[in-house]
Amino acid sequence: MLVATPQSLHFDAPLALQSGAFIRQYELAFETYGTLNAAKTNAVLICHALNASHHVAGVYAGQARSEGWWDNMVGPGKPVDTERFFVIGVNNLGSCFGSTGPMHTNPDSADGQVYGADFPVVTVEDWVHAQALLLDRLGIHTLAAVMGGSLGGMQAIAWTLLYPERVRRAVVVASAPNLTAENIAFNEVARRAIVTDPDFHGGHFYRHGVVPKRGLRIARMIGHITYLSDDVMNAKFGRQLRDAVVRAADAGAGQGGAAAGAESVASYRYSTQDVEFQIESYLRYQGDKFADYFDANTYLLITRALDYFDPARSFGGNLSQALARASCKFLLVSFVTDWRFAPARSREIVKALLDNQCDVSYAEIDAPHGHDAFLLDDPRYHGVVRAYFEALAAEVQA
Amino acid sequence: MLVATPQSLHFDAPLALQSGAFIRQYELAFETYGTLNAAKTNAVLICHALNASHHVAGVYAGQARSEGWWDNMVGPGKPVDTERFFVIGVNNLGSCFGSTGPMHTNPDSADGQVYGADFPVVTVEDWVHAQALLLDRLGIHTLAAVMGGSLGGMQAIAWTLLYPERVRRAVVVASAPNLTAENIAFNEVARRAIVTDPDFHGGHFYRHGVVPKRGLRIARMIGHITYLSDDVMNAKFGRQLRDAVVRAADAGAGQGGAAAGAESVASYRYSTQDVEFQIESYLRYQGDKFADYFDANTYLLITRALDYFDPARSFGGNLSQALARASCKFLLVSFVTDWRFAPARSREIVKALLDNQCDVSYAEIDAPHGHDAFLLDDPRYHGVVRAYFEALAAEVQA
Repeated sequence: MLVATPQSLHFDAPLALQSGAFIRQYELAFETYGTLNAAKTNAVLICHALNASHHVAGVYAGQARSEGWWDNMVGPGKPVDTERFFVIGVNNLGSCFGSTGPMHTNPDSADGQVYGADFPVVTVEDWVHAQALLLDRLGIHTLAAVMGGSLGGMQAIAWTLLYPERVRRAVVVASAPNLTAENIAFNEVARRAIVTDPDFHGGHFYRHGVVPKRGLRIARMIGHITYLSDDVMNAKFGRQLRDAVVRAADAGAGQGGAAAGAESVASYRYSTQDVEFQIESYLRYQGDKFADYFDANTYLLITRALDYFDPARSFGGNLSQALARASCKFLLVSFVTDWRFAPARSREIVKALLDNQCDVSYAEIDAPHGHDAFLLDDPRYHGVVRAYFEALAAEVQA
Repeated sequence: MLVATPQSLHFDAPLALQSGAFIRQYELAFETYGTLNAAKTNAVLICHALNASHHVAGVYAGQARSEGWWDNMVGPGKPVDTERFFVIGVNNLGSCFGSTGPMHTNPDSADGQVYGADFPVVTVEDWVHAQALLLDRLGIHTLAAVMGGSLGGMQAIAWTLLYPERVRRAVVVASAPNLTAENIAFNEVARRAIVTDPDFHGGHFYRHGVVPKRGLRIARMIGHITYLSDDVMNAKFGRQLRDAVVRAADAGAGQGGAAAGAESVASYRYSTQDVEFQIESYLRYQGDKFADYFDANTYLLITRALDYFDPARSFGGNLSQALARASCKFLLVSFVTDWRFAPARSREIVKALLDNQCDVSYAEIDAPHGHDAFLLDDPRYHGVVRAYFEALAAEVQA
């Protein structure tokens, strides 16, 4: 089993952000797996989405259940094989897992307060610039590949536009060239739930010793609904009652347990506030878990980075023109049941790349899991990625 | 223009609810349009969905913008023609527009408190029983038709099962035989937003002089996203900035206004809390408006009635068996872009009715508006309904 060790680097030079603001100095938390070859041709950067981190693969020594968030994809013998590639995971600025973010001390605060809501708005492009500075420090000029799913895929696209000469291949999974109005709408409802939580205190809740957990729970519940497909929700939860079996068994106890098979007619509780259906229990659990570890300001920042990403914007909405700067090879993957970042959005990217005579591979995977599929180990999906990295390994002599 | 007059009837006998609870006594608010013929064969009952009421059609005298919620469908010369039919709209129990609900005095309260969260959970079937008692009082035995969209369509289905001998035709628009896990999930998030609002006070906020507006706003924003299609949201709002034109014009003012056409490159505000996109502004407005007039306990009750509706439940999930009791004619209508109550759900009902040799008409309308389409006046949709009611008028000599 791959054992991961988190690292961190400090950057003294201010980072100029797209908004015009600066981050005066910052830390970037990262992990690496595998070995950089002598020619430095085998580096792969993995970019994370909303609630993940630099801990992509492996486990932490002595910590049970500490697998990285893409451990099924990255590791020894995995599709992104760390026996051939030197893989880097980096936590993005504004996140809450080690890199500088809202929970860190604001150097402009006279009395040493944390940033909170004063952490500047960061964009996908800002993250990519910071990632490039990290690579400089690691002595890596060219990436064999940059790869990410969802928001991570947006970072991969941005890499090919901001640093075309530093990327050989980009792997963009379950992503989109920008958010739709509906995507933005879901983000906005989640943000409003957080911001209007009385414990948010305008984003400076830390100094009040509270956390806007109500808002975070609602935000996460909304997120979860959009990560899953309607079909997989029906398959997993359907209209099952939370404790239907227990209640049916109870009811049948006096009749020799004859009602054990009567699950389908177990009685409702008739309550508007108690959990009645399994899906409710699942969502509440996910919301509670998330509110215990995720930072509310980070949630706002990262969903805003999603909203803002739109490379075609400076080209009058013309994505083909926007992607003209890209010169690397591309693999795009989408999932047919993903209604958050639907295959049609990936096809827009594919078309724009083809308009520019780029070398593009595209796989549309018929997996049932919705957007979440990008994190799961569908064999067709993993097979496509594995083959793509095998070809890349040959190309860069990894 | 049709002028509507709200009416109300008091019911002294307790109403036994599906949950086992009772409503000791109650008022039902209703409106009627047109004239009941001598043979009493031309009555049509319209059932409302989540946030509507008995005010289906017409306007209130002297009140601007007081059109009923289905005024494009019901009225003189409209598809449901009040010159031929006697149309009844009724506000359901637990609602907040006149019929007995959480804001009314609880007769079991020693000190005259309102029900609040103690209002009993009501189901679609409970509503139908109350509607039948109202018809008894109006001297109407048989309905020419019962009609509703969404949750209203569920009431129409329930009528055909509970009172098959009292219904000639049922018109079920944009409805479903039950909610999917995803539907329940959206309802649950909305309910959690309301219940966890500190101003909810366990549902007894009235005695604290507050309203859980934060929660109601979030609930309504979530609802609105699910009422619209992704396409119509993109067409209506897309990624437009809230004040892009103004800002572009501002920017161009020093250059003789040359930037007036530069809307697409207007700068972002780079804010996580301010409105940036038009869709955000729209959702916040809808949320604010709703929180000003809708009762929080009613929201919980009505979404729960949606969750609970499932006529196939007592038949091991077999909808064909569940609908075997229905003997009237049916018209079902669905909309291809409705992802809340998708056409596939209407087709399940159609199939189950056909299994029972029912007389079923079905129209699937290619309207772009999502679930909201059932309230809009698409000419194909209205044409189908008009033709259906013309045939019915001939049948009942209306």
